[in-house]
Amino acid sequence: MNSHVSYRSVLAMLLLGVVIWFLPVPEGLTAPAWHLFAIFITTIIAVILNVASIFNLAIAALAIAILTGTLTPEQAYSGFSAGFILLIVVAFLLARAAINSGLGERIAYLIIRRLGKSTLGLGYSMAITDAIIAPAFPSNTARSGVLFPIIQAIALGGGSRPDDGTERKLGNFLMMNGIAGLTISSALWLTAMAANPAGVGIAEEFGININFSSWLLASVVPSLTALIVVPYVLFKVANPTVKRTPEAPELASAKLQEMGQLTSKEWIMGITFILVVIAWALSETLGIDKTAIAFLGLAVVMFANIFTAEDLKAQGTVLDIWVWFAILYTLSNALNEFGFMPWLGDRIAALLTGFSWPVVYVVLVVSYVLIHYFFVSQTAQMLALYGVFLSVGLTAGVPGPLLALMLLFATNFFAAITPQGSSANVIFAASGYLETQEMYKYGAVITAVNTLIYLTVGSAWISLVAP
Amino acid sequence: MNSHVSYRSVLAMLLLGVVIWFLPVPEGLTAPAWHLFAIFITTIIAVILNVASIFNLAIAALAIAILTGTLTPEQAYSGFSAGFILLIVVAFLLARAAINSGLGERIAYLIIRRLGKSTLGLGYSMAITDAIIAPAFPSNTARSGVLFPIIQAIALGGGSRPDDGTERKLGNFLMMNGIAGLTISSALWLTAMAANPAGVGIAEEFGININFSSWLLASVVPSLTALIVVPYVLFKVANPTVKRTPEAPELASAKLQEMGQLTSKEWIMGITFILVVIAWALSETLGIDKTAIAFLGLAVVMFANIFTAEDLKAQGTVLDIWVWFAILYTLSNALNEFGFMPWLGDRIAALLTGFSWPVVYVVLVVSYVLIHYFFVSQTAQMLALYGVFLSVGLTAGVPGPLLALMLLFATNFFAAITPQGSSANVIFAASGYLETQEMYKYGAVITAVNTLIYLTVGSAWISLVAP
Repeated sequence: MNSHVSYRSVLAMLLLGVVIWFLPVPEGLTAPAWHLFAIFITTIIAVILNVASIFNLAIAALAIAILTGTLTPEQAYSGFSAGFILLIVVAFLLARAAINSGLGERIAYLIIRRLGKSTLGLGYSMAITDAIIAPAFPSNTARSGVLFPIIQAIALGGGSRPDDGTERKLGNFLMMNGIAGLTISSALWLTAMAANPAGVGIAEEFGININFSSWLLASVVPSLTALIVVPYVLFKVANPTVKRTPEAPELASAKLQEMGQLTSKEWIMGITFILVVIAWALSETLGIDKTAIAFLGLAVVMFANIFTAEDLKAQGTVLDIWVWFAILYTLSNALNEFGFMPWLGDRIAALLTGFSWPVVYVVLVVSYVLIHYFFVSQTAQMLALYGVFLSVGLTAGVPGPLLALMLLFATNFFAAITPQGSSANVIFAASGYLETQEMYKYGAVITAVNTLIYLTVGSAWISLVAP
Repeated sequence: MNSHVSYRSVLAMLLLGVVIWFLPVPEGLTAPAWHLFAIFITTIIAVILNVASIFNLAIAALAIAILTGTLTPEQAYSGFSAGFILLIVVAFLLARAAINSGLGERIAYLIIRRLGKSTLGLGYSMAITDAIIAPAFPSNTARSGVLFPIIQAIALGGGSRPDDGTERKLGNFLMMNGIAGLTISSALWLTAMAANPAGVGIAEEFGININFSSWLLASVVPSLTALIVVPYVLFKVANPTVKRTPEAPELASAKLQEMGQLTSKEWIMGITFILVVIAWALSETLGIDKTAIAFLGLAVVMFANIFTAEDLKAQGTVLDIWVWFAILYTLSNALNEFGFMPWLGDRIAALLTGFSWPVVYVVLVVSYVLIHYFFVSQTAQMLALYGVFLSVGLTAGVPGPLLALMLLFATNFFAAITPQGSSANVIFAASGYLETQEMYKYGAVITAVNTLIYLTVGSAWISLVAP
């Protein structure tokens, strides 16, 4: 991604926004709803076209929404104190602490030692590691940062380098497998990706309640199926030239030897993590606030010097996410409150009239996945389209929990479709083991297999457990 | 400041908190008010004793307040979306942009070229630069980061190094003068220090309205007096061995020559700054939101590539400030809402009964200044004590605007009292030009002179313009 902003594209975007703003307000909509739509759609288009950073575009949209009187300052800023957004912020910092403590790496090596004898086995071991640590990492990007150095170490250890024609020995497959695994691990747990809880918040506004347990129950069967099938299919497609890696378990063993006994920091980190995850699981029953639990966990690991005030100063990325995420969420939310989403839903629903709900369901999910070719951020697409697609499906009679969950799973399983389809892809794309065109090809295969599995196995299972 | 946290001190603090919590609730207070006080006072004491970073202590306090049911999550998180706190966050980023653009440095050199012929003149020129750029820098810490490299360059250019016995030629005086100047520049403008708008928010709850213009009007006379007197007194006390610096204007000239014409980035930065400051000044008349203006300004300089998404990733400090500041503000605010502040005010007022209001006024201000010996953060002291002192003074008949303004000015002019009295001091303290004991000595002189000037000239002037 080029971080240089061109004046011309900013002006073009501004012009587009002004044109939409001054179009006649469609019947059935209020002027503020239309104006907010003008601001929001222009922002989303600018994000997709990478006109500027999402942070930059979000704060511009926020300022314009307030200064034009479209939103009050209180409405516009409310997202910054939303509990689930703060949960992401804190969990991001907790993830950093897990990396600092060394515990994340140790868990990865333990799994590799058991499962890492073949290239495919390594692929599975990384995907399983990912799936296991995922509930405690609400940022797939942060998780990609944990997995990447390990995958890289394994590839290099296996004699596959990015710069001497040995890319296809191991690295090429393992890197793309890392991306594929993240799409599934993120769909598996409510707390495995930043957009998931936000989507659950939106679903709640449609009267559909999803929590940590019900998400997991619905997701576990299709996700585990995908976890078994996808690495295998990718292995066949990528066809790495080295297929056995008997040295990987030893490498992991050696690394574990090197790490020695669990340090006190790892103990504290591990116990804190387990307690936090247990408290999260019990939070609804006991009526305790998830975010406060996360804050307490972070305070504990800070008191233990696992995550320090100095470490905090390096976490500008969290500031970035907090701001743009809160703003896009608030705008998307306000668009719904202003009646825009239901209105748009009615329009699209009119086009789908006469079709039975299963047809509408499949068309909606497949369109939702394909549209991700044009989105740089999973979260941005979810915020822009999830409410609309859900509303259309509900009107057409698609069972609410089925559609709500499937679209949220899709928000994760479509992420491999392009190299820039998720911020978690970027580190792998930059590894030197993957050509851009190759990533598009592998990405299409991964996404097709994911979509097929979730739509068949997943739909059947969800209809059974969350009717 | 040692960033390593000791278990023992954390446990001691926890114990203290528990003890206070379980003390009998004093008559006239509700249990939640007392419990919130237990959490808050323990946090403040831990901050003063530097038990852990203020961020760490603040999130622990937040989590405990929520998990004990003392505050609801909504109450506890509300500070994160408070407009004035977001204003600080955004302005911090704008300050970074000003540094990136090169405009800050250029303005400094322009002033030195005119005023920098003597050591005292250099001191004045830095203090004046500081005072001029201050309204656009709501972080005195950020401003210290702008001024420090320039002051260092001047000291080195004048043959005064921190490591070869030449400290006292120039550097020793100029570094301490930088600290002194910041105490005054921060008191001069409402937007020159992070705690100022927060204090104004607290004053508002007491029915005392202060805005950008009324602050400036009240502050301008005592602050300019201090700006003239303090560097001179410090010059006499520090007694630098080099008193004339005829080469400084040439150095500045050379630097300006080197910088060449204003770059397009400086132009955009300068125009944006001027427009933002004008809009801030007009915001109340026109009814536009100050924070939205700041967001728009930041968006513009980001579109102009002056502040990039990459730069943002390095701004973890802003995340730090946003979180702890919002939390302490919220706790302090809730303490007031729960009736604790008025209750405490009544108790202290009882001790001061029978004295005329001028006596109460002087006692309150002088105590407020001296207490800063025990506070590491200006903002923490303001949040902890401002409301209480204001409440006591009002009960004793001290004119509201006079006391409200004077205590807020004091929050700035007392900052030089210890090396750790302000985060803006730290960079100078670490320069190598100043001994710790020397800083305590100079700091006492600066604070005494400041207090005297603001209490005499300031009180008289404020009584005239803001009766």
